[in-house]
Amino acid sequence: MHSPSDRSPADRFYGVIPAGGVGSRLWPLSRASSPKFLRDVTGQGATLLRGTWDRIVPLCEASRMLVVTGCSHAAEVRRQLPELADANVVLEREGRDSTAAIGLAAAILVRRDPDAIIGSFAADHLIGNEVRFRAAVREAIAAADTGRIITLGIQPYEPSTAFGYIRTGAPLAVDGAPSARSVDAFVEKPSLAKARTYLSSGEYLWNAGMFIGRADALLAAIEASTPDLASGLAEIADAWTTPERDAVTERIWPGLQKIAIDYSVAEPLAAEGRLAVIPGYFQWDDVGDFASVSRLAQAELARSGSASEIAVMGTDERNVVAVDASGLVVAETDRVIALAGIHDAVVVDTPDALLVTTRGKAQSVKQIVDALKTAGHSATV
Amino acid sequence: MHSPSDRSPADRFYGVIPAGGVGSRLWPLSRASSPKFLRDVTGQGATLLRGTWDRIVPLCEASRMLVVTGCSHAAEVRRQLPELADANVVLEREGRDSTAAIGLAAAILVRRDPDAIIGSFAADHLIGNEVRFRAAVREAIAAADTGRIITLGIQPYEPSTAFGYIRTGAPLAVDGAPSARSVDAFVEKPSLAKARTYLSSGEYLWNAGMFIGRADALLAAIEASTPDLASGLAEIADAWTTPERDAVTERIWPGLQKIAIDYSVAEPLAAEGRLAVIPGYFQWDDVGDFASVSRLAQAELARSGSASEIAVMGTDERNVVAVDASGLVVAETDRVIALAGIHDAVVVDTPDALLVTTRGKAQSVKQIVDALKTAGHSATV
Repeated sequence: MHSPSDRSPADRFYGVIPAGGVGSRLWPLSRASSPKFLRDVTGQGATLLRGTWDRIVPLCEASRMLVVTGCSHAAEVRRQLPELADANVVLEREGRDSTAAIGLAAAILVRRDPDAIIGSFAADHLIGNEVRFRAAVREAIAAADTGRIITLGIQPYEPSTAFGYIRTGAPLAVDGAPSARSVDAFVEKPSLAKARTYLSSGEYLWNAGMFIGRADALLAAIEASTPDLASGLAEIADAWTTPERDAVTERIWPGLQKIAIDYSVAEPLAAEGRLAVIPGYFQWDDVGDFASVSRLAQAELARSGSASEIAVMGTDERNVVAVDASGLVVAETDRVIALAGIHDAVVVDTPDALLVTTRGKAQSVKQIVDALKTAGHSATV
Repeated sequence: MHSPSDRSPADRFYGVIPAGGVGSRLWPLSRASSPKFLRDVTGQGATLLRGTWDRIVPLCEASRMLVVTGCSHAAEVRRQLPELADANVVLEREGRDSTAAIGLAAAILVRRDPDAIIGSFAADHLIGNEVRFRAAVREAIAAADTGRIITLGIQPYEPSTAFGYIRTGAPLAVDGAPSARSVDAFVEKPSLAKARTYLSSGEYLWNAGMFIGRADALLAAIEASTPDLASGLAEIADAWTTPERDAVTERIWPGLQKIAIDYSVAEPLAAEGRLAVIPGYFQWDDVGDFASVSRLAQAELARSGSASEIAVMGTDERNVVAVDASGLVVAETDRVIALAGIHDAVVVDTPDALLVTTRGKAQSVKQIVDALKTAGHSATV
């Protein structure tokens, strides 16, 4: 599948941003109508989507950036990314998981540029050191031109039990990608004890779900694992620049298999020794829940040298008063918020919904969203 | 001081309601501008003040009910108690504690009716069985006509550490007051271990701060302990029905000693064996903090047979969604309120202020109010 090209790999790189998912565990900040990637949930001064764009665009031109998102978010995505070309907005009528989303982008791009190398970066992650991030992606682009699929693995800086891990294998001798290694296996979120072992072994990286590969290689991998899905994507991509696009998409898309790219591509390739990883030495977070937001906010608080034990986001911190309390307050209101005798609290105050939980129980916010739907509060989720 | 009268003690009974105090520990439900006694903080369907009035007025006529309150609350007190006679509203320019408040009422009443028997009942208490309450007050009125000062002591129904206790002494043989006993001593809020001993001994009652006595006897007791305060009150009372009232009050009131009636009257008399107590066999609560409100609300929840672990007040309970959570939600908004993984929570949601604490830490709400003042949020307290 690897065909030589007279353009350098970097000149054939396309940034793909799958911007999907509701972010239920970040309710009420993240809503179906306004999911976390469209919001500045961590108080960075930019939405997660805009931050992702700004992080990737130095690796290519804006004209080589694609965003895959839901129809209902198209207008807001365009508003936040005015540089995004119309032809590069790939709209999903409904989410069909990451293989369909990234695979469709790959299928569209390979028809434009048979030597395209694509990198897929979720719209809702946060990365600390962007220079190091791009250095890792550049290695990945170089390594991808060998026909391998490359993932970025984050060098762990704490024994996290919130992420899956990648067990690395032998170093690969790839031009332009000196730190590339093979991937031995993916491992599930570990216990704390196991996470400590992983951390001290030096052989494990966090699985951040970022993939870089030649578009043709990626499609071949999808073809191998899920051939019906691959042919469906090919049919849509063939019609993409024709007047039949909508009709074909409407016919095929809803029947596509829902499968994460981790299972359709990454794990099968890893089992065959055909997946490579570039270790990334930067802070990374998938901002999956309020434990994550809280961790980020507390780290920011520590860096700022503040003595406060309450991280405040979204409102004037003078509006928050605490006695014997610690945690995170996120407010979209200008009310006075008082916490007394409660630790590792998470209080999220929005005009129409209030969440009170703790960092340790942040996972159960997903159940809250389910309970709200059951209770007839669908308009609020 | 005891002079015979041809009217029965019940016909000479005056109900006095001191309606003061900010109720800081019930912030943000209770505010300086709208203290708890003016509000229905326990969801009874009536404000605490109105509930107090309705509980006392069957013991006398509305014309024999007095309310002592702050000038800033006069309008709202009159609105809630349209039956309250203008002449029976005693306004304080500023709070000078309970001896001044009750003593002034006594001094005014003794000038109207030298044989007056007064009962003082705080405007912000809650009582379960009103029939038993009034039966106890009727005994107290009969006992008071002997010249003794009588307090109501609540028969404890749990080993509470939130209240002070009364150690009872020998039964007194008083006509019309078969359960009257002498008071041996007042004891401070005990430890749980001590509270259990008190409960099982059967010799201790809760000190509910309700006093019944002949007005002249009460004034004599104040005279004995705090003569300057007594003479100040006499001077104001002498001017009360004259055009000099405001001038005299303004001159004397601000200089009156601030002392609780417990210290000026109850403790000295108890030490001399001249204080009596009528045990009250009814539920009683001083609604002092959210632990108290929470206890009342949870008891109500249990009585209603609800399986919910969250007591909801002030809002539609369908607005409150909980996952692995228990406690109390009081809301003056119609927002969705979600609790996850937090127990014995207290969440109080008002349009301009939000409080998040736990039942065990309800006492620290007072410090929140102090912190708010310091932080420049005086308008919110």
